Amino acid sequence: MLPVDLPGTVRDALLAPLVDHHCHGVRRDDLSRAEFELLINDGGSPAPPGTTHFDAPLGVAVRRWCAPLLDLEPHTPPAVYVSRREELGAPEVNRRLLAGAGVVAFLVDTAPASMSPADMSPADMSRADIDLLTATEMGRHGGAAADELVRIEQIERDVAEDAPLAVDYLDGVGEQLTARAARAVGLKTVIASLYGLDFDPARPTRGAVIAAANRRLADPKQPLTDEVLLRHLLWSAIDVARERGLPVQFHTGFGGSGPDLHRTDPGRLGAFARMLQPAGVPLILLHCYPYHRQAAYLAGVHPHVYVDVGLALPHTAAASARVVEELLELAPFHKLLFSSGCHGVAETCYLGALYYRQALGAALGSRLAAGEWSAADAARIAHMIGSGNARRVYRL
Amino acid sequence: MLPVDLPGTVRDALLAPLVDHHCHGVRRDDLSRAEFELLINDGGSPAPPGTTHFDAPLGVAVRRWCAPLLDLEPHTPPAVYVSRREELGAPEVNRRLLAGAGVVAFLVDTAPASMSPADMSPADMSRADIDLLTATEMGRHGGAAADELVRIEQIERDVAEDAPLAVDYLDGVGEQLTARAARAVGLKTVIASLYGLDFDPARPTRGAVIAAANRRLADPKQPLTDEVLLRHLLWSAIDVARERGLPVQFHTGFGGSGPDLHRTDPGRLGAFARMLQPAGVPLILLHCYPYHRQAAYLAGVHPHVYVDVGLALPHTAAASARVVEELLELAPFHKLLFSSGCHGVAETCYLGALYYRQALGAALGSRLAAGEWSAADAARIAHMIGSGNARRVYRL
Amino acid sequence: MLPVDLPGTVRDALLAPLVDHHCHGVRRDDLSRAEFELLINDGGSPAPPGTTHFDAPLGVAVRRWCAPLLDLEPHTPPAVYVSRREELGAPEVNRRLLAGAGVVAFLVDTAPASMSPADMSPADMSRADIDLLTATEMGRHGGAAADELVRIEQIERDVAEDAPLAVDYLDGVGEQLTARAARAVGLKTVIASLYGLDFDPARPTRGAVIAAANRRLADPKQPLTDEVLLRHLLWSAIDVARERGLPVQFHTGFGGSGPDLHRTDPGRLGAFARMLQPAGVPLILLHCYPYHRQAAYLAGVHPHVYVDVGLALPHTAAASARVVEELLELAPFHKLLFSSGCHGVAETCYLGALYYRQALGAALGSRLAAGEWSAADAARIAHMIGSGNARRVYRL
Repeated sequence: MLPVDLPGTVRDALLAPLVDHHCHGVRRDDLSRAEFELLINDGGSPAPPGTTHFDAPLGVAVRRWCAPLLDLEPHTPPAVYVSRREELGAPEVNRRLLAGAGVVAFLVDTAPASMSPADMSPADMSRADIDLLTATEMGRHGGAAADELVRIEQIERDVAEDAPLAVDYLDGVGEQLTARAARAVGLKTVIASLYGLDFDPARPTRGAVIAAANRRLADPKQPLTDEVLLRHLLWSAIDVARERGLPVQFHTGFGGSGPDLHRTDPGRLGAFARMLQPAGVPLILLHCYPYHRQAAYLAGVHPHVYVDVGLALPHTAAASARVVEELLELAPFHKLLFSSGCHGVAETCYLGALYYRQALGAALGSRLAAGEWSAADAARIAHMIGSGNARRVYRL
Repeated sequence: MLPVDLPGTVRDALLAPLVDHHCHGVRRDDLSRAEFELLINDGGSPAPPGTTHFDAPLGVAVRRWCAPLLDLEPHTPPAVYVSRREELGAPEVNRRLLAGAGVVAFLVDTAPASMSPADMSPADMSRADIDLLTATEMGRHGGAAADELVRIEQIERDVAEDAPLAVDYLDGVGEQLTARAARAVGLKTVIASLYGLDFDPARPTRGAVIAAANRRLADPKQPLTDEVLLRHLLWSAIDVARERGLPVQFHTGFGGSGPDLHRTDPGRLGAFARMLQPAGVPLILLHCYPYHRQAAYLAGVHPHVYVDVGLALPHTAAASARVVEELLELAPFHKLLFSSGCHGVAETCYLGALYYRQALGAALGSRLAAGEWSAADAARIAHMIGSGNARRVYRL
Repeated sequence: MLPVDLPGTVRDALLAPLVDHHCHGVRRDDLSRAEFELLINDGGSPAPPGTTHFDAPLGVAVRRWCAPLLDLEPHTPPAVYVSRREELGAPEVNRRLLAGAGVVAFLVDTAPASMSPADMSPADMSRADIDLLTATEMGRHGGAAADELVRIEQIERDVAEDAPLAVDYLDGVGEQLTARAARAVGLKTVIASLYGLDFDPARPTRGAVIAAANRRLADPKQPLTDEVLLRHLLWSAIDVARERGLPVQFHTGFGGSGPDLHRTDPGRLGAFARMLQPAGVPLILLHCYPYHRQAAYLAGVHPHVYVDVGLALPHTAAASARVVEELLELAPFHKLLFSSGCHGVAETCYLGALYYRQALGAALGSRLAAGEWSAADAARIAHMIGSGNARRVYRL
């Protein structure tokens, strides 16, 4: 699905194996149609009576592009697709789709689904105990290497549930971050979904943290929404990341279910990014849509800020080329990464990779046709975005 | 003006009669050039000396597409267009343009022009007593059915002018909403223009409402900008809508003259939408531009949220295809509606329908050419957006 | 690089000399590669180890389009480009690039670089004493007329450093604005970068200004970030502008290094613009990206608001056509201006003009091909945007 007249070197660069620097484990069990529909929609509710979540860009793309990998015709009806999926069984479906994505390494956020950005809706809470592939399994199914990303809010919850006193909580957060970061390639925060990105960028005082921790420990099962504790957690993570040379990923933009969308605009991280610049910890902005232009701007002005549009590509599907084009308006090419944002079902991984290649291919094709770029630059930059930049930032 | 190579079924679906689920009555009288210019601009002021409101996307589109319906050449000069309009007379012009839109049913916001979203500018206040076609007349001129939408802020003003005491005001708002909703197909709020969409989503307490109503009754001729009373009115409307199974339309984005534009971003309705989800009242986001991506996102995650770009299409005119493309990035196809947003002159209705068909046709054509969608899906979805979804939501 | 099938009159209109209504002086001295890289990036920091600021849209465009003017092949490597630049010497390079832009008049913001929108980052402070071409020199090098724009925050700093008392400060601001405006064609404010555009639109009271001035005079070397003094300065500038019939330019959107990006959204000037409408002082929104749609909206509803996307074109480079297309969605054609936003190196001037012509040419070409516009309108409007509107607004 690449433009037909791309030079061979550019085509090869686009088709080369990708580093998927941010994904989640997918469901290991067979899925009913109702379950599958919930997993291809971002909201956690069934479609209204008489409608289906297949009638959305991602749903049409599943029928178009994933169906052939399950030996079905393109545009196959939803019922046929779901039933063929069951017939083949989840392991075989996952293998075909993950391997089909052409990924050489998965970096996997291993937090349980109940800690997903959408973890505050009742519908999502019911998914809390479901079974997702581990990082190792994601790699094995996809014929790829696999590494772990540590979700810092998951660590916090484990600590909050165990700490008898605020001072234990503080020690616990630091110790657990250090311990778990030791076997990870990066840290990740979902503060955008839990609070918003308009938090006070300064490190909170110890006194404020103790006071907030005391409140927190009274009911540690609640999702963490306290701004002071979220900032404390984030700054503690920054300390660990600096020490170990790890990047910190920020979920930004759509795909969570917390505050109003404008509060997840990554542009609101400007002052925080400036404050972090001396530390040299890479900040990686995930998803970003519909604020990907703002994210690209931050990546352009801050040497330690990186950007990708992740989950926006499988979700915008047939319209994803424009999203990539808008990202390319301002982002430096050494700051762009690929991720599928894969979530719930392996279809999102396959489609993430497919639309990434298609959209970047279209962007490069039009620049070559207009004489704006040379083929050598196009091939070089496709390699950088597809894997080179991730290898450098994550030290793979 | 559809792509030449569209399959016949898709072409037929695009050309099928539309349900225009949100429009206003148009002027019934002949218009001078100065009056016509004011009505094709969104701001309420004459163009600066030496310039003309015809030199804007909508103005060029009027000369291009409406001129032939008045027996003129495309691209006819403004003076010729306005003089031919007078020659034919407003009734004939309205008939040609409204019938030319190919609409099978108009849902008409029947508030007087002085209650338009732009009702706070002095220029607009001067239009307060002008004569607009009623819903019935809109239907008759356009050869279509017609139903009414109730502007809740108009009801409030009528009640405020008549209520001696705050308690009468409270009773009156509830009673009048109930009475007028009985013969309407939907309710509509312009809270975005009067206050902004960043209101506190919670229902205000009775005490707060009484206090605010007392202030209000001291000067009921003023436009309603009190946040507490606006919320009270909105929640009262939600109660009535729930009882009668009616949707509630929200004016969002450009096209009003109240608060700064970012405060009309429909993304700011996220918490309110979540709060309303159990009630099941459909929320319909109108216009949305330039925040249509945010609106499409809300429509994707909330089962009761719907979206259309209304007035954005005639106003962006030759550039409207990209607006529709951006809307299609994330919005479920069963959540998209067509409206012309028709306002002031029938040209906006005709152009709204024309650019809707043209833009959706281009979007479908490119998906078919890329093999992304099947023709059967394209035709089915065109029917859904053009009329099917509206018939379902408004129970037409 | 214009579409091949444009009618001759439209082509001529696009290639006609431009009025560049907003640019800065460029460096007069030879630049090392490190210096050159800093000047083609917006952030003021070197690219991370192993990367280069040439790997960004603007950097690729320099190699593609500026190289031939220095007798090099398109797509020449960065090292070759920088070394050829040194070989020719800065005066010759500046002459070729500025003359190559095809500009008939430069309006030049003559504030020293340390007063640039980015003046708060340490990296930029180090450029404080560098040598930039004056307005006269810009004109001479570019074979064009040249006029001055007065940066009001520079005047304030000069006054603050000299005023013994708050009352002298107040008098000084008014007197200096009047004196310097006497030989300028416009005023310019960078309040977006110093504070944000979400300032209180009302004129501050004299008492508040005196109090703030007393604080200011204690440390006048600091950049001005006090909201009250910035508003006082702005309203004082408005007074002078009204008296002398001068427009006031606002830096908006990307390109500064002050508050978070969303606070530079020109849409936030809505209430201020409404307040200024009776005064009739033209407000000109510069750059605007990624909020150019919001800026176009303001230009549509306020008779005294103008817009251009300046620096966004050289920075988005190969992707600039979409930015211009989005600007054309709503902006009246008599409200659009051209500027290169030229900054630091003459390449930005040359590329600003090149991409402006290319992007507008593409937009006009597609409207002509679709039959949306007539060739006569296209040519007329190209003349208006390229120079006519600027001549009218600045009374050139």
